[in-house]
Amino acid sequence: MTKTAAIIGGGVIGGGWAARFLLNGWNVNVFDPDPEAERKIGEVLDNARRSLPALSDNRIMQEGSLTLVETIAETVKDSDWIQESVPERLEMKHKVFAEIQAHCRKDALIGSSTSGFKPSELQEGASNPAQIFVAHPFNPVYLLPLIELVGAPQSCARAKSTLETIGMHGLIVKKEIDAHIGDRFLEAVWREALWLIKDGIATTQEIDDAIRYGFGIRWAQMGLFETYRVAGGEAGMKHFIAQFGPCLSWPWTKLMDVPELTDELVDMIADQSDAQSGMHTIRELERIRDDNLVAMMRALKARNWGAGALIKQQDDANAPALPTQIDKPLRTLERVIPIDWTDYNGHMNESRYGQVFSDAGDVVMNMIGADQAYIDSGLSYFTVENLIQFRNETHPGEEIHVQTQVLQAEGKKLRLYHEMNRANGELLCTCNQLLIHVSLETRRSCEPGGEMAAKMKALHEAQTKLPKPESMG
Amino acid sequence: MTKTAAIIGGGVIGGGWAARFLLNGWNVNVFDPDPEAERKIGEVLDNARRSLPALSDNRIMQEGSLTLVETIAETVKDSDWIQESVPERLEMKHKVFAEIQAHCRKDALIGSSTSGFKPSELQEGASNPAQIFVAHPFNPVYLLPLIELVGAPQSCARAKSTLETIGMHGLIVKKEIDAHIGDRFLEAVWREALWLIKDGIATTQEIDDAIRYGFGIRWAQMGLFETYRVAGGEAGMKHFIAQFGPCLSWPWTKLMDVPELTDELVDMIADQSDAQSGMHTIRELERIRDDNLVAMMRALKARNWGAGALIKQQDDANAPALPTQIDKPLRTLERVIPIDWTDYNGHMNESRYGQVFSDAGDVVMNMIGADQAYIDSGLSYFTVENLIQFRNETHPGEEIHVQTQVLQAEGKKLRLYHEMNRANGELLCTCNQLLIHVSLETRRSCEPGGEMAAKMKALHEAQTKLPKPESMG
Repeated sequence: MTKTAAIIGGGVIGGGWAARFLLNGWNVNVFDPDPEAERKIGEVLDNARRSLPALSDNRIMQEGSLTLVETIAETVKDSDWIQESVPERLEMKHKVFAEIQAHCRKDALIGSSTSGFKPSELQEGASNPAQIFVAHPFNPVYLLPLIELVGAPQSCARAKSTLETIGMHGLIVKKEIDAHIGDRFLEAVWREALWLIKDGIATTQEIDDAIRYGFGIRWAQMGLFETYRVAGGEAGMKHFIAQFGPCLSWPWTKLMDVPELTDELVDMIADQSDAQSGMHTIRELERIRDDNLVAMMRALKARNWGAGALIKQQDDANAPALPTQIDKPLRTLERVIPIDWTDYNGHMNESRYGQVFSDAGDVVMNMIGADQAYIDSGLSYFTVENLIQFRNETHPGEEIHVQTQVLQAEGKKLRLYHEMNRANGELLCTCNQLLIHVSLETRRSCEPGGEMAAKMKALHEAQTKLPKPESMG
Repeated sequence: MTKTAAIIGGGVIGGGWAARFLLNGWNVNVFDPDPEAERKIGEVLDNARRSLPALSDNRIMQEGSLTLVETIAETVKDSDWIQESVPERLEMKHKVFAEIQAHCRKDALIGSSTSGFKPSELQEGASNPAQIFVAHPFNPVYLLPLIELVGAPQSCARAKSTLETIGMHGLIVKKEIDAHIGDRFLEAVWREALWLIKDGIATTQEIDDAIRYGFGIRWAQMGLFETYRVAGGEAGMKHFIAQFGPCLSWPWTKLMDVPELTDELVDMIADQSDAQSGMHTIRELERIRDDNLVAMMRALKARNWGAGALIKQQDDANAPALPTQIDKPLRTLERVIPIDWTDYNGHMNESRYGQVFSDAGDVVMNMIGADQAYIDSGLSYFTVENLIQFRNETHPGEEIHVQTQVLQAEGKKLRLYHEMNRANGELLCTCNQLLIHVSLETRRSCEPGGEMAAKMKALHEAQTKLPKPESMG
């Protein structure tokens, strides 16, 4: 059954939550008294729609419905997850929670996006304190998977498993502390950066370069400790700490003190930031950022690592069923074109049509039993010939599907004819693909076994009876 | 003329410098009295050879020669760049610099990999102080582009332009301070992480997840300030500081104090790290890390952003000349297969053969004048048909080249026949490619102008006289 999320406060963070739920098929109710709320959420949604769906390689997200609601009572009453993202004022949050708990379901999850308050503070005076927990996201909420969960163990555990279904990673923080985990690091780096600017050591641009050309790329995939474990070499983590540990007492840093945020310092930072990024509007920067994040997360996905491994897990969990009706053309693939498949002409690069057909061919392989276990056992299919005819362009974000007809499935040979179409049925490209059954040990062709031969025979008989696809001419 | 680097100290950092120079065509002399030096450098080189070359999409790196030398005098005497990476003991560094300056060229650059010392400290008692500067790299040195340069402006400026030729970004730090820039951030985060572990808030794994599922991916492409600029929205950086600034005075953090590194804390970290990553050897982790970095940096390269933009710049600067001898088959492409082009079979995915042929076709387009400026003017070629015949597999790290014959270049039509080969000449794949000249405005075919037609005619006449390639059968 379709689940419902209630979003209380529809700014950048609340809007990001709304988009994350909505694009994962939830219905979303939003409460925000700001007359600009609809426009603001619409902008976040635009960004989310052009970036989130293409993280997946095997499903097209069916959006839920979005409703702006006039009262908190109406917003929360049938909701499974209620997310509070109002300004960081404790008395305001207390009022909001009282209103929520007066009208919500007893089993609803109530998360707060707060970075400034601990759950014990949020829960003060609540009718059902254990229901309220911290669910602290990171911007852009529709792309970054991390949610810090702090609160009653049972609420956090339920929240964690719900978050998994919308592609997020709930990190349960064992004890409540100010600023949870991530923001403590951000705060530490922020202070240090302010000193560097104030003291004229480096500009905002130089500091950003120092991060993104150096440890930033390391941290994107392994974080701090695994990176240092590698740096420590075979001697391991103890060795590394022995080497690096003493630095802690060196006079390396101004961390012991906090720079005063004078008008002069604020102006200096703002001017440097203008010089660095002023050639782009914020909207442009958001899209550049999102495209970069999607491309890097998809790169990590192909390595099955870090944030990419989370996306792969979700894809695997949502893998579409194999076609079962073998007496009709096979619907072998449905997907969205991702940003990393485009070229200088702005459309999908010709090689990625090949990717689509390669993936569609995999589905037929799976249908006859050549799945991952089969490949792991040392047998597979290799493509030996593709005739690809390009009919039309396609662009990032477009939904496409592939219809496949089996032309031959006998002995070592599997010959497929794929038609790639837009959602409206317009033909984009065709591919006549010949695959050969091989031994992965000898890397040479060989006959498939009896079980596979039987499945191939059934497929061959059912499919070769069908009329030739029109596009074959 | 081939340049020479002298590497003094061949550990992980010195070995990384050696690999970076060597794979960019420099000859490298290494001095390291450790009897294990050759093995250690060999291990770093193995890692570098399997990851660095494939960052490029258009050149095959010709390695220089590596020599282990017995004395500092011999190591440095003809070197253009001398890099000191000995242990962080000032008196040892002073001895090494004295020995270097007694034997090196007056115009040699002398960089130090130190993270702990300022250039003024390194230069104490030197015969030519201004020659010595900090050139602080980040591990793995063969992949990460950042070098912090601190010292005399003239030396730093020369170092910066030399670094560019080996794919690195020299960041000139305007004033010397302890720990330069990057390590101040690392130090701040390290302290905070130690508190989180000591206080039982999070494990090493949870801290790494908090980084790599959250701000780590953001920082990999935009760093700190540009990320916050976006978060501030249209109101800009001042607005952001106004919002976030006050947090600086909140009691959010233990940064004001330093945890004592007791045996108990060290054991706790080591145990948690074993639980997190102990299933991989350090060698495996190095390769996982390098493959992740290459894949993400290549993803950023396709977006022309951050560390990827640096790689693209270097590729563009090293772009091979277009073939000029048009009466012979055209050598249209030479490259190394990158890690992000592989699939579950462990070899290059079939779609990436299409990428290679697409890139080879671009070279012929360039030869007849359909270059980036032409495309920007609103005209281009689209591929309408590819017949790809796969003969053999290829794997990450392999050098391949494409030989192209023009079968037709008349009117709107450009028909090419590509043969993709291994370095030893073995045929990997062929492609018969038909391209059509199009208007990017109407997205329909149109006749090319007179200048292009003339170039096409010359190419057509020269190439169609050649015998048909044997592989066409």
